[in-house]
Amino acid sequence: MPRTVTPPTTEPAADAPVELKEACVRAAHEFIAEHGLERLSLREVARRLGVSHQAPYKHYPSRDHLLAEVIRRCFRQFADYLDDRGEHADPREDLGALGRRYLSFAAEHPLEYRLMFGTPWPAPAEQLGLVEDARHALDVLRAVLRRIHGAGRAQRTRVDLDAMFIWSQMHGLASITQANVMDHLGLVPQAGRQMVPHAMHMLSLAMAAASVGPTAEDRGSA
Amino acid sequence: MPRTVTPPTTEPAADAPVELKEACVRAAHEFIAEHGLERLSLREVARRLGVSHQAPYKHYPSRDHLLAEVIRRCFRQFADYLDDRGEHADPREDLGALGRRYLSFAAEHPLEYRLMFGTPWPAPAEQLGLVEDARHALDVLRAVLRRIHGAGRAQRTRVDLDAMFIWSQMHGLASITQANVMDHLGLVPQAGRQMVPHAMHMLSLAMAAASVGPTAEDRGSA
Repeated sequence: MPRTVTPPTTEPAADAPVELKEACVRAAHEFIAEHGLERLSLREVARRLGVSHQAPYKHYPSRDHLLAEVIRRCFRQFADYLDDRGEHADPREDLGALGRRYLSFAAEHPLEYRLMFGTPWPAPAEQLGLVEDARHALDVLRAVLRRIHGAGRAQRTRVDLDAMFIWSQMHGLASITQANVMDHLGLVPQAGRQMVPHAMHMLSLAMAAASVGPTAEDRGSA
Repeated sequence: MPRTVTPPTTEPAADAPVELKEACVRAAHEFIAEHGLERLSLREVARRLGVSHQAPYKHYPSRDHLLAEVIRRCFRQFADYLDDRGEHADPREDLGALGRRYLSFAAEHPLEYRLMFGTPWPAPAEQLGLVEDARHALDVLRAVLRRIHGAGRAQRTRVDLDAMFIWSQMHGLASITQANVMDHLGLVPQAGRQMVPHAMHMLSLAMAAASVGPTAEDRGSA
């Protein structure tokens, strides 16, 4: 059933475009959930909203601009979700809580997760807003690592390399557990249940061992 | 330009069906590379091969059966590629070589990698051949881990959990480095170059630390 958007009147004229702009984001998100990313178009969004084919173009020059805005909202939702993990006095406990939070977001919001991390970003260089929101999500992890390694300039490399190491692990776990291939690999029965705690334990062992050893920079690895 | 398949004659009649069966796999692979997975159909494969629309059905009951065979070949190519990493007397060095080999396959064969690990398997329970070939690829990793932990029944859980831990890390690294988002995250300049060696170093630290600690099973983690 097409929904109508309040047409501009004399009084709320300034609000109506904002309303349509927002409605386009919601409609695009719903359309992707139902029909997949490939079939998304501004025309389909207009049809869904019961507005003219031209109407969405007032706010989005192209389908990719609207898609970028949809993905940007996913990153905001994701960063807020990570921020809501509660307070942890011990930064290593905080890191564990952040990892579990990452994985539960991926499990609860598979579409949003796939849009953020399993889809080529549309024209990313142009979409500065998307880049900033994605970076903000990574900054949640960096902030925890700065609590562990220190916030100085000298620690920046270690913070970034650990961030990419930990993010890779989380992304791999999220992808593999979602892909539902594990049932077919002849794993021991407890693998499904213990896979994530084991990986989190291994990560914490690596972090603890690295904290007493040389950094990647010191080792001059190439 | 449509290629023709040798029509059956009196002599090589027994070979011709095999030839078409193989030609379908190659044509489907090429079609996916050019047009993406969504548009693959047995009709498109037949058109590409210059055979009748019905011809591929003799060998593949559905598009998904053919797709499963394409993915199965990717797993075989992948397992052979992993096997070709050379001999390493030290199993921990072998593990490092295997990891680097995994990542170079992903970088050199992004389409094949995505078909194996970024695409829902078509009707996997039916496609027993696909499952077996995927399992064989994982068995390459398991074999190295058995060299480290031992090949007994008691070590099976540790082998499988470490396999999933290491695979998750490799899959995350492969996905993130391919996604080309790293340029937009404000990372330190050396992150691109050091990310993989750092992750490999952290993995080896975790493995070394775990070898002197309790197993996940001993800890009774849930």
